[in-house]
Amino acid sequence: MQVEEKKQIAAMSALHEIQDGMIIGLGTGTTVQYFLEGLATRIKNEGLEIIGVSTSDRTTRAANALNIPIEDLDNVDHIDITVDGAGEIDKYFQGIKDGGAAHEYEKMVAISSNKNIWIVDDSKMVETLGHNLPLPVEVVPYGSTKVLRRLDNEGLNPKFRMVDETNYYFTHEHNYVIDLHLESIDHPHYLAAWLSRQVGVLEHGLFLDIVDEVFVGTDDGVQHLIAKREKRR
Amino acid sequence: MQVEEKKQIAAMSALHEIQDGMIIGLGTGTTVQYFLEGLATRIKNEGLEIIGVSTSDRTTRAANALNIPIEDLDNVDHIDITVDGAGEIDKYFQGIKDGGAAHEYEKMVAISSNKNIWIVDDSKMVETLGHNLPLPVEVVPYGSTKVLRRLDNEGLNPKFRMVDETNYYFTHEHNYVIDLHLESIDHPHYLAAWLSRQVGVLEHGLFLDIVDEVFVGTDDGVQHLIAKREKRR
Repeated sequence: MQVEEKKQIAAMSALHEIQDGMIIGLGTGTTVQYFLEGLATRIKNEGLEIIGVSTSDRTTRAANALNIPIEDLDNVDHIDITVDGAGEIDKYFQGIKDGGAAHEYEKMVAISSNKNIWIVDDSKMVETLGHNLPLPVEVVPYGSTKVLRRLDNEGLNPKFRMVDETNYYFTHEHNYVIDLHLESIDHPHYLAAWLSRQVGVLEHGLFLDIVDEVFVGTDDGVQHLIAKREKRR
Repeated sequence: MQVEEKKQIAAMSALHEIQDGMIIGLGTGTTVQYFLEGLATRIKNEGLEIIGVSTSDRTTRAANALNIPIEDLDNVDHIDITVDGAGEIDKYFQGIKDGGAAHEYEKMVAISSNKNIWIVDDSKMVETLGHNLPLPVEVVPYGSTKVLRRLDNEGLNPKFRMVDETNYYFTHEHNYVIDLHLESIDHPHYLAAWLSRQVGVLEHGLFLDIVDEVFVGTDDGVQHLIAKREKRR
């Protein structure tokens, strides 16, 4: 089965969790795009009344194009379910989001949600985080070379993300992204806490103790995984 | 002695630590303004060659007006001394900066400095932090009502800082400020770590384990205090 098909069946399975009247956090990425298309179909066919809360400009544009109603996070009291993709997920249900442009928004929506669902193809399920993907860190531009040096001194192999040879990549909030090219992240909670403490660091791509359920698209259909831990939010 | 005079004598004392060739971090505030004026006079009279690194637009404008050369933090290898004010300082040399518009820059410059000096009048020396001043917290606008609710649930008495009844106060980075109106901050390190972990929080006004020397303007002249602790940067 092609990877796109795996993403699609994972997204369709998550769609079954959506009920009439729900407030739904809408993640960002190619797998979420399949979910949005399925959601639009259910709204049209079943007259489902839902409110979407977007995590990025990209998702807002896609939702608008699909006639999915969007409300600002600040204007909703709660979120019932958030559906998002992930770059990597380990067996402890810890994850990395590799996009980097909208972590702040994605985390804000995630922690405001009663339930978090991730939809992925099976290539995203890993033994150890950080091996296949760099870990993105959002940093304030002013003084960012000093932040890079600090990360380098910690052996975190940091590199500014560029759009070409001379232009920096910018996040939604108009910050830079530094990608940490790590062999593996053995202690994600330790690294996350250390990064959070660093002056100049706004957010990072580690999504820890966030997800409740994962739908994994595989050659044999969709695996439905449920995180069995205490949440530490 | 008037408070302005106390600020001025504190600023003048700190000026003695400045030597030819130094790279100097320039804080923000009314006391720093006296320091800038004194520094400009030394540059003019003694031909002092220094480079200033600014922590705010306000300081950059003041330095430009006084012909103090300014360089971007990203373009200097290190900072020799940073001179800044403070809103409150306790006996353990922990402090609050209450301005709120430029914490990110101020902290970035401070932690890039080999030595940090604070200049204050004696009303700033307190038994316990947070009693006289609210603690400012810089938050990303998107989802900020959710952040306010989280802070409120922790009993931190948060209020959005407004410029008038309908308009939010904005920081340099175009974020909001939530002021925490606390009776006292008994465990500043605990609070700082907790705030740093919160999604949506960029920075806060607690400056812990930062300052090396304090010049305090009093009725009896300037007190020179030296922090005798290990730095935990």
